[in-house]
Amino acid sequence: MAVGLNSFPAIPHIEGVRFSAVEAGIKKASRKDLVVFEIDKGASVAGVFTQNAFCAAPVRLCREHLALSVPRYLVINTGNANAGTGKQGYQDALLTCEALAAIVKCDVSEVLPFSTGVIGEPLPTDKIVNALPAALASLKGEGWRDAGEGIMTTDTLPKGAYRRFEVDGVHYTVGGISKGAGMIRPNMATMLGYVFTDIAIDQNVLQGVLKRATNKSFNRITIDSDTSTNDSCIAVATGLAGNEKVLDVESKLGCAFERAFTDVMQELAHAIVRDGEGATKFVTVEVIGAKSQDDAAAVGFEIAHSPLVKTALFASDPNWGRILAVVGRAPIESLDVDRVNISLNGCSIVAQGGRADSYTEEQGQEAMNPDGIHILVDLGVGDGEDTVWTTDLSHEYVTINAEYRT
Amino acid sequence: MAVGLNSFPAIPHIEGVRFSAVEAGIKKASRKDLVVFEIDKGASVAGVFTQNAFCAAPVRLCREHLALSVPRYLVINTGNANAGTGKQGYQDALLTCEALAAIVKCDVSEVLPFSTGVIGEPLPTDKIVNALPAALASLKGEGWRDAGEGIMTTDTLPKGAYRRFEVDGVHYTVGGISKGAGMIRPNMATMLGYVFTDIAIDQNVLQGVLKRATNKSFNRITIDSDTSTNDSCIAVATGLAGNEKVLDVESKLGCAFERAFTDVMQELAHAIVRDGEGATKFVTVEVIGAKSQDDAAAVGFEIAHSPLVKTALFASDPNWGRILAVVGRAPIESLDVDRVNISLNGCSIVAQGGRADSYTEEQGQEAMNPDGIHILVDLGVGDGEDTVWTTDLSHEYVTINAEYRT
Repeated sequence: MAVGLNSFPAIPHIEGVRFSAVEAGIKKASRKDLVVFEIDKGASVAGVFTQNAFCAAPVRLCREHLALSVPRYLVINTGNANAGTGKQGYQDALLTCEALAAIVKCDVSEVLPFSTGVIGEPLPTDKIVNALPAALASLKGEGWRDAGEGIMTTDTLPKGAYRRFEVDGVHYTVGGISKGAGMIRPNMATMLGYVFTDIAIDQNVLQGVLKRATNKSFNRITIDSDTSTNDSCIAVATGLAGNEKVLDVESKLGCAFERAFTDVMQELAHAIVRDGEGATKFVTVEVIGAKSQDDAAAVGFEIAHSPLVKTALFASDPNWGRILAVVGRAPIESLDVDRVNISLNGCSIVAQGGRADSYTEEQGQEAMNPDGIHILVDLGVGDGEDTVWTTDLSHEYVTINAEYRT
Repeated sequence: MAVGLNSFPAIPHIEGVRFSAVEAGIKKASRKDLVVFEIDKGASVAGVFTQNAFCAAPVRLCREHLALSVPRYLVINTGNANAGTGKQGYQDALLTCEALAAIVKCDVSEVLPFSTGVIGEPLPTDKIVNALPAALASLKGEGWRDAGEGIMTTDTLPKGAYRRFEVDGVHYTVGGISKGAGMIRPNMATMLGYVFTDIAIDQNVLQGVLKRATNKSFNRITIDSDTSTNDSCIAVATGLAGNEKVLDVESKLGCAFERAFTDVMQELAHAIVRDGEGATKFVTVEVIGAKSQDDAAAVGFEIAHSPLVKTALFASDPNWGRILAVVGRAPIESLDVDRVNISLNGCSIVAQGGRADSYTEEQGQEAMNPDGIHILVDLGVGDGEDTVWTTDLSHEYVTINAEYRT
């Protein structure tokens, strides 16, 4: 029941990137559950990861390998998160990297491992290792939908996005895939996101672009407030577009790239919300007039996490009292209740901290009917603003999460 | 579908307290929706209130009146929260107090008003005022169940508790009622709680006892993390038991009283959780071994608020990975993941940060079957501990909150 999620886009070939998706039989038979990316030498690669203290074994290994080498291979399995698996989990992630490195004859630190799926069960390394030769034999530069499908868990649709842009006669492409539908309140990145580009860009500059874009995309979405143990987002720039290496995002090219990259990241992040577990609404919570951006984000997340607001959204009920009550308990210091204004899809519901005089239930009901909802909260005390995206809370969410393991 | 909520207890008469519950027709016909308490002169009265910045009009008036006088009357309506109603709401709450004061010829500041129900609609003061004479004419000292029923909203059962104790040959009674089933993550008190006792006790000492007891009861329960605009809890000590006034909780009598009072508050708070909207489980989250009590409470609430943990509880699914992931993202500074131990109803599921060696799915399943669940988390780094009570997240919760207004 994805909300307004378009069909998978025709992401073009990105020079220097090949990939494949095969059936390793990790959890279910007859589904692609192992994806491998191959990246040409000379790329810049940046990564952001979960801040959950119980980060999964592959996340720990990713961080270590990124510190040692520029990755040549990404190996991603679904069906098993290899999280909460202790020392054995770390050994299993390492073994997967070693097996791939042995086949392609690269250094083990040039392989980054990623896992998503159920927490706390041992990784079936034999199945993964057995499937690696087929994966490596079928690498190609097109058919991104396969890669998108190969990393899905409870997602109902694969997620991809791309942008092309041109600066001074050179054409560039940014494209990527993401996954995630529950346990989504990333605090570094979504469960899994991979964005590739052919631009030549300095590694540190790319890391900065990734970090800023993450804070405007994956770090501003929430489905159920639960931060996963496996969140990872990787940016790869192969450098084969033909430009002089970008050393500065203030430059014309750097600026154009950051905009395109951020657009792709936002579209991938929004796709996760649109396909959120049980989602029937795609909800944008925009907070303006706050003392600071942090305050705006805090109020936005507080609204986006409230079960009472989320069930009202599910019911298309313009229950402005619940939104007001959440603003009132948000963890910010300087709230002037008499300055708060709130609108729903442009319909003013709260003015100066009370029900707007012009408000009628009919208007409110009409504003709530679409499956896209824009909640605009003006705190009226400053210039801080931020935007958070979320879903409603439906019966389907309870069903999915009460039955996920059984 | 209340979980293990016993039938309403036979709360005995408490000297100096009379009450009545009548039908004012505020929202629905043929139900008691207006409760009045009359308190003898000479009592000590303490109160704690919501910390929601959008506190309701009656909460503001309660605070003002408590600062001026010792209350003689409490007037409580259900069906309308008189919250988000601006200046008119304040005038309406005041008008209710004035009408009551005029009949009984007391000062208006000796009346405390309380409202619960739907947010954002004008209080029907005419209905309340019209019902006051009947309420005042029917005051009596027994039949507490009527008062419990008269303050219910989405509660399925009335909630009461009492304790009797004896010190040095004098007998004392502590008894009270509470209500609340959704929008429950009190941060001062439950939506509404009233506890009465006949002990003679200094006003400031009573306020201290109430505050401490609140932090061990109403401030440690959560159903859906939403703090109401109307939370209020009042303690009334009529002083008619015959003791010398308690001036110190370190005394033998003060100590016995605080224990009995805290017991009543906890039983009333637990009753709210047991009757939580859609509850099928009564869940105790006990966190020990934390660096501080604050850390323990933070981890406890983080678990109690996680939709993924709550849906797993609904499914009786021993999904320890979800609990572990929540501990990992809890907002505390010093988490040593390798020291974390977790058990479910005595069954060890996580040892030293990973799945316990002894754990089997069958044991876990068996531990999750009862409708009372005790989650014990040992962080292994200090002496801080705290306990939080909550419910699961069921289809019924979504149904109730998607349909409450429509």
